[in-house]
This record gives sequence, C-alpha cells and structure tokens, in this order.
Amino acid sequence: MALTLVHPGSLAETLSGAPSGPPSEAPSGSLAGTLFEPLAVGPVTLPNRIVLPAMVTRLSGEDGHVNPAIVDRYVRFAKGEPGLIVVEAMGISQAKSGPLLRIGDDAFLPGLKLLAARVHASSATLVVPQIIHFLKIARSGWRQTVSDLTIAEIDAIIGQFAAAAVRARRAGFDGVELHMAHAYTLSSFLSRRNRRRDEYGGSLANRLRAPTRALLAVRQAVGRDFLIGVRFDGEECITDGYSVHDAQQIAVQLGRSGADYVSISAGGKFEDAVKKPGEPLYPYTGYSGDRCMPGKAYPDGLNLYLSVGVRQALHAHGLPHVRVVGTGKIWDPDHAAQLVPGQVDLVGMARQLLADPDWPRKVRAGRRDTIVFCEYGNVCKALDENFQRVRCTLWPKDSLHAPESILPRAAPPPRWPEGGAGLGAELARGRVRLTWQRALAAPTAASPPEELYGYELLRAPGPPAAELTHYASVRAATPSFLDTDVLSGQTYTYAVQAYDRRGVRGPRSEPLVVVLPAQDEGADACATEP
Amino acid sequence: MALTLVHPGSLAETLSGAPSGPPSEAPSGSLAGTLFEPLAVGPVTLPNRIVLPAMVTRLSGEDGHVNPAIVDRYVRFAKGEPGLIVVEAMGISQAKSGPLLRIGDDAFLPGLKLLAARVHASSATLVVPQIIHFLKIARSGWRQTVSDLTIAEIDAIIGQFAAAAVRARRAGFDGVELHMAHAYTLSSFLSRRNRRRDEYGGSLANRLRAPTRALLAVRQAVGRDFLIGVRFDGEECITDGYSVHDAQQIAVQLGRSGADYVSISAGGKFEDAVKKPGEPLYPYTGYSGDRCMPGKAYPDGLNLYLSVGVRQALHAHGLPHVRVVGTGKIWDPDHAAQLVPGQVDLVGMARQLLADPDWPRKVRAGRRDTIVFCEYGNVCKALDENFQRVRCTLWPKDSLHAPESILPRAAPPPRWPEGGAGLGAELARGRVRLTWQRALAAPTAASPPEELYGYELLRAPGPPAAELTHYASVRAATPSFLDTDVLSGQTYTYAVQAYDRRGVRGPRSEPLVVVLPAQDEGADACATEP
Repeated sequence: MALTLVHPGSLAETLSGAPSGPPSEAPSGSLAGTLFEPLAVGPVTLPNRIVLPAMVTRLSGEDGHVNPAIVDRYVRFAKGEPGLIVVEAMGISQAKSGPLLRIGDDAFLPGLKLLAARVHASSATLVVPQIIHFLKIARSGWRQTVSDLTIAEIDAIIGQFAAAAVRARRAGFDGVELHMAHAYTLSSFLSRRNRRRDEYGGSLANRLRAPTRALLAVRQAVGRDFLIGVRFDGEECITDGYSVHDAQQIAVQLGRSGADYVSISAGGKFEDAVKKPGEPLYPYTGYSGDRCMPGKAYPDGLNLYLSVGVRQALHAHGLPHVRVVGTGKIWDPDHAAQLVPGQVDLVGMARQLLADPDWPRKVRAGRRDTIVFCEYGNVCKALDENFQRVRCTLWPKDSLHAPESILPRAAPPPRWPEGGAGLGAELARGRVRLTWQRALAAPTAASPPEELYGYELLRAPGPPAAELTHYASVRAATPSFLDTDVLSGQTYTYAVQAYDRRGVRGPRSEPLVVVLPAQDEGADACATEP
Repeated sequence: MALTLVHPGSLAETLSGAPSGPPSEAPSGSLAGTLFEPLAVGPVTLPNRIVLPAMVTRLSGEDGHVNPAIVDRYVRFAKGEPGLIVVEAMGISQAKSGPLLRIGDDAFLPGLKLLAARVHASSATLVVPQIIHFLKIARSGWRQTVSDLTIAEIDAIIGQFAAAAVRARRAGFDGVELHMAHAYTLSSFLSRRNRRRDEYGGSLANRLRAPTRALLAVRQAVGRDFLIGVRFDGEECITDGYSVHDAQQIAVQLGRSGADYVSISAGGKFEDAVKKPGEPLYPYTGYSGDRCMPGKAYPDGLNLYLSVGVRQALHAHGLPHVRVVGTGKIWDPDHAAQLVPGQVDLVGMARQLLADPDWPRKVRAGRRDTIVFCEYGNVCKALDENFQRVRCTLWPKDSLHAPESILPRAAPPPRWPEGGAGLGAELARGRVRLTWQRALAAPTAASPPEELYGYELLRAPGPPAAELTHYASVRAATPSFLDTDVLSGQTYTYAVQAYDRRGVRGPRSEPLVVVLPAQDEGADACATEP
C-alpha cells in the first residue's frame, strides 16, 4: 500500500506491549480493504476514505476565536488518522453568534492558522473548516426565514461565503466545506418549504439559485486547486420536505458548479423542532433531528440509501469525480469496509470518532477488538443542545477529550477480581437488569487509575451456541446495564469484558443465559366476549 | 401455471379488440415472474402475490353498515384480481365511530356477509376485513392515550378483537387483519412513546403485551384454519419512536403468537400531526403521515427496507412461514416483480390499485402499456382528511369508482387532432409549463364520451437519445402540466400520449426538447467581498 501516513508507532506492536518502533505497514489481508487506500478528491488526495464530519464542540467562547481546547480536540482527532477532518461550523457573518467558531473577519485568522498548522503537524489527515450562514432566531419562537431576505442580503451572504473561503485558504486549510444542510440558510433555500415567490424559490431550479451562486462565488474566489465540499440533506425528513429525488438533482447541479465532494446528511430542521418555553428552537429535537443523529433505536447506516442514490445520479450524469460521503450511524469496521468503493466514496462517522478517535488506526492495524464503540445514547447531542461542552459519556469522568489510546508501553489487560466477573441478571418490569463485578486495572506501577476504561457487553439472541456480538458499551464507573430490548419467551445469552484505555479487552465473562417467561396464554383463553 | 382465477375474458384479446373469449393463460415469459404464482399463507393459498392494503373509502354512513357503494368499490377491486383484498378498517367497539365501517355487533353481519359474498362471486381474490380499536379524540386537541386505560378496559378491548374476528368468520371472510399500525390503540401500545408504567409499557416485552394478548385471543377464538394477519409500523417516523430494530422483534413475537402474515406500514402518528384549530387531529399530516402515504417527492418503495428487515428477522428465527407484505409507493410492474420472492413475500399497493384496479390483470397479461399509473398527488388522502368520499383524481369527473377498463369490444385508441399533439413548453419562474392539444376519442358510435381518459407524460433527462420513461399521469380535462422539478442548464425531452378507458395509448407526440438556461455565472464573479 502506498500510504504516506505518519505513524507515531506501530499500533499492532504497541498494543501488544512491544516498544515503540518505526512506521510499519498495515497487515496484509485486512478486512478493511479499500477503506485505507488513498482517494483523489478534486485537487487533493485523501490518505484514506474515512471522514470526520463537522461536529460542534461548544468549546469556543462567545468571541468565536480558536482556543487551546479546540486545538487539542482536533489534534486528538488527527492523531487517529482519518482521511479528512471537517472542523465544526464557523460563522461567516461579522455579527456575534454565540458559542461558535467564526471566520467572518481577518481577526480570526491567527487562531485558524494555528488550528490548521497543529492538525497538519499531527498526521497526514487533511483538514477543512465547514462554513455556515444562519438566520436569526429568538427565544419567543420567532425565526427569520429565507422569505425575509432581500436580494441585497442574499448578495451579501454570497459574498461572505466567498470571503470566508478565501480566509480558510489563507489560514492554511486544505479546502472548505459549505454548510447547506439542516436548519441553516442555504439549506432553507434548497428546501421544498422555501416559500419565496421570486427567482429564489418555488421550482427546484430557483431553490438552487442562492446555493449555486454561493458555490460558484467560492470557486471563483479560491481557484481550482482548493478543495470545495458541500454538506446537504439527502432528505429533509419533515412533512412536505424533499427526499432523494431532489437530492440527486441538487448534487448534479452542485457537482457541475464546482463541488469536489458532497457529504450527505439528513433532517435537522426547525420545522418539526420541539418548542421549549423560553428557549430558542433547537433543530435536532424533532424526528428530523433523530434522523440527523440517529440514536440506539435506529438501524446502522439508516441514511445510506440517500448517499447511494445521490452517487448513482452523479455517475449517471457523468460526474463520478464528484465524491460522495455517506454518514449516519456507521461504526462497525466490517460495515464501513463494505461501503467503499461500491456504495459511497467516503465513509463519514462523527459520534464513533468522538467515542474513539483512533478507530481508523485500530481498524487499519486489524485491531477491531480494541475499538471503543459508540453507544448512540446521544449524550453528546444533549450537551450541544444545552450549550455544554460536547464530550463523550464513555470518556473518563470530566475528561475534555478522548484519552490517548495508542500507548507505547506494555501493560496487561484488565482482569476480573477473584471469583470472576459474577455476571448476574434479574428480570424487573419486562427488563433484564445485568450486573457484574468491577474489573481491576492491570497491576503494574506504571498504570494510572483510569487504565480500567469501560466494559463491552455482548449479546446473542438465543442459547450460547448463537454468536455473541457487540451489544453495548458501558462506562467503567457503572458495572451494570438495563436491557429493555427483550421479548417474552425468548432466550438471550450475555457476556461482558472489561477494557483498558487502549481498548484492549480483558477475559470474557462466563456466558449468562437468560430465559424470559412467555406471555401467559392461559389468561387470554377467556378473553373473548361472552 | 396452476392459476384458478376466473377470467371474464382474455385481457390481451379484449384490449386488442378481439371478441371476448374463454379464459386463457398469462403469456409465458412474462416479466412479472413470481408475482403471479400462488402462495400459501397460513391456512389459505392466495392466487397471486398482490395485496390491496386497507384503505378508508369514506363511503360508509355514520351507522357503520355496509352499503351498496362500499360493495361496488370492493367488487371493482376484486375484478382486477389481486391475491388478497383487505377491506378498510372496521371498528370493533359497540360505540358509534363516525363514517367508518363497524363489526362490533351482530347487527352488522348481514351487510358484511353481502360484502364478502359479492367479492367472492367476482373473482378468486381472497378478502379479509381489517379490525381496529382506537382511542377517543376531541376537537379541543385532547386525546386519550394508552396510559389512560385501566386493566379492565384493556381486557375488554382484547375481548372485542376476538369477538370481531369471530364475526368476520361468520360473515364469510377468509380471515381477519388486526390493525396495529399508525395512531390506533394497539400501535400505541407497541410505540416507544407508550408511557405506561405497569406491565403494559416500558420494555419491548411490556409494550407487546396487549397486542400479543389480542392476537392470542383472536387465534383462540377463530381456530387454526382462519387467516390472521397483522398490520403494524416498521418505523414510527416520530422522534423517540421505534424503527426496524423493534419491528423485527415485534414481528417475531407476533409470528410466534399465531400471525400468518405481517403487513408493514410506517408512520401515521398523532405525535407529529399538524393541529388545525377546531378540527380533530388527523394523524397523516406530519412527516409520519408523509411516510405512511409517500407522495410525489419520495422515491419508490421507500419503506421497503422495513419489510425486508422484518422478513430477515423472521427467517433468522425460524419463522419463514410468517409472510411479509411490503408496501409504500410501489406502482412499477418491473419493480414489483423484482421484490418477490427475494425481498418480500407479498407486494401491497393501495393508491396504485385505487387509480387502476386492473393493474394485476394487465400486468399478468403483459400489458403494462395499458396501466393508468398513480400520480401520488395524494388527492385521495386529502379527501379522507376532509371526510369526503375517497376517489382518485384520475377517474372521470364525479365517478365514485374506477371505470371498467377490461372492455370486451374493439375500439381504436385516441388520436391527436389534425396537426398533431402540438406539444409546447414555456419557462416561467424556473418551471416548465407544458401544453398540448386535446386528444380525440375513438370515432366509433359505440364509444362513450369518457373513452378519452387521460394523458401519460414521458420525460428523459437529456436530449432525445435518452430513454423516455413514465413521468406523470394527467387528467383528460386538463391537457397541460407544470414541471417544477427541473434544473438550470439542463436539457429535458418530453413526449405525451393520450389513453382511453382501457388504458390503451394513442400515438406518442413528437418529442419536445427543452433546454433550460444555465444559472448566470457572470453575476457571481463580483460577488466576493471587497
């Protein structure tokens, strides 16, 4: 493989306890396949096919400047070596915008330069900022819509996009991503709910006018040799919204207008947001928010049909060079590996990389067994909604970033206390409550207390002969789990294993077989009417 | 093929003008493949794999009795020869329930007997009623929830389901379908939004308790040799709702509890319904309603992943005999034929069969070219919402049912007036307005005036070399179409053809090539900030 990644140390070696060595190749025959082959995207080549989509951190102050916590967050992501990092949305206007990064003035350039430089110094990962314009919103529930914008205001917004892209270039980023998804201005132009009656609304061509102008202006401003991506919704997931039919045509027009890649999201709209008295609308509270950041209840990759549909349209229109990023609850390395190159060009994962930024390195090294898997409990989303600093609940308590997990030193994995894991279960109100013994950190003097990092719960839908697969990640502090997702009369087998900060699992507990009582049929025998 | 269908006349022959003849076999080598092979479902064998899902007609009066209009509607469906007709939902309680059929008392038996007998006399199609329980709802916006029900009330509801199923059997139906989808009682038990804190809410096992009891009671009451189906949501399509993970487990439990088939719907919930002052909530107004009856903006078969997922779970749990009906914007015969037997067992289509009940016969005869395709404009849905009698906008004006389209007499197809179709286009506000000449009915004395029935518009995304495919169905009264789904700078080719009541198309118009102006890039060149 012709990778040019900087390897601080061979992962396979460090995880197995050998001393840090020179860079090494990934194991041949890796299941990850194409995922770790480089890919040309417009004027650049990404070192692999894994993308970190933009994810707000709430680490920035009201001033909009890059600060050390933000730099640390993105350096941490870079150390995991995804192919591309998209830095959280930055406001392009000159107005204040709450706790959000800004790129609407040259005053922000020093911080942005530092951010780009530090990421570049950390790995071969490329990095682009997402640039955003949004409309006004009030606690009263009032919100500005695209119908309220004058032509002069639209012109000004387009100019701000171009100017922000130029600043991104001056700051040393590898490109820029235009935010045309969710509840924000350009997305609201694209929407089928765009009610403008002039040439910026109504038909699809008109809804595309402002977004296309913004893209053309950005391309004109930065030239051909700067990466330009667009993130937009493959489906709005609101009533009377658009779905993949429109998304396909939007992608074609954006591709023809200079986009090097399109990154396909879903939902995240104001139209179905849940109003909380005295709070500004949060566009991720309705079903469209569920679809944007699908939680536990949703299947893996539930939005991929949108990316696949968009890509088919791009290929049908002679635009295969416009790359497609597919996102939405992708965490399983085998699943991700199946997606490229046949279904999507690039695999985006936000919450999984928040949970374990080293996913790319671990998968490349064939060490799936050391990944800390996202719970999809959306605590990160709740923190964002409440303007709290966004972190992962699986991280050690109070940590502001994921801990280093590629550790250049030997350490035995966690172990169970004498007597074993003691995995037990009780049935309460149709739920299975599982509890087990607290695992013990490796007994070396070099191990800090947080070396015991968490537990992986495995489940099989049947007796022990059925295959146990990943079911949940559990924080180290709470060796218990409440399984509400069970059927009467069904047999389940559970096991649990502790893992340390490297993700290295200790010994698996004995399997525990739980048989739920069948629903009483006798009680129903007399339930017919007389 | 071992079909036992009653053929009033050979379709291929009657469409080509030959006199009515004896029953004939479908053409060999039909693209429809397995679609027209019989399938064992529980104790019965359906003559083919096409299902008409329950669809409210609003033809019943407040008394809940079967009336002649309702009989005529279902006889019309039967003449098209689907494998199974599910008659619109019938209330199982003894209370009045607005304009909805009822089956909660023996007083309804005579009408139900007549309905079953008339359908059976019309074709080999099997017929079952859908039986429903729903909670109270007020114009004020208040609505009863499952949390309000006492255990005694739950017991009573379960008894009503069993009693209704017994009545369905006594009425001569082939089985019964329990309504566990959308906004109704059993669906609300299944929902993740079920907030009950006793053994009927919380965990999945508890949410399934009342629906399972109802199913067990029905099976107990009607015995093994009566078909029992269940319709439920594969995804709720509301925030905090369930998706296919839960649906898979629900299907397994229902299959184990005696369901012969599961019919998979989506959405249709109160939780996201749009409140109109002074009107009771209509559960098909929010996004979940869009997903339940997906309109033009949505792709074909958009909910099929739910049926496919459910079927995989049934097979994995050793329940392949529990058949799965997939639904949701299926109209294209080639698409439907691809779905069986690999993806679903049975193909459900409601609105397409409303538009053209003869779809099954026409497809079996290899006459796709005579089908009147649904517009997915959801006028039928709007009629239901407003308590108007549900009809299809493509039918002749004021018709209460689809006209007969299998006509045992010769007639030439419609023709264009002298000078041809005159297909023309103008661009207005980013839309393409197409107009053409009114076609002329076949000039035979035997042709009634409605013989000119409508127009099929075809479109290709490119110059004439690209393949023209079905794009829209247009009523005979309005020879024009407004295409809002167009891109700037794109070339489209259109053609139009008129069809008569048999669906037989007249000559296709000359293709019309429309080139939309590109979005002006020059205007953007100076759009960057100074």
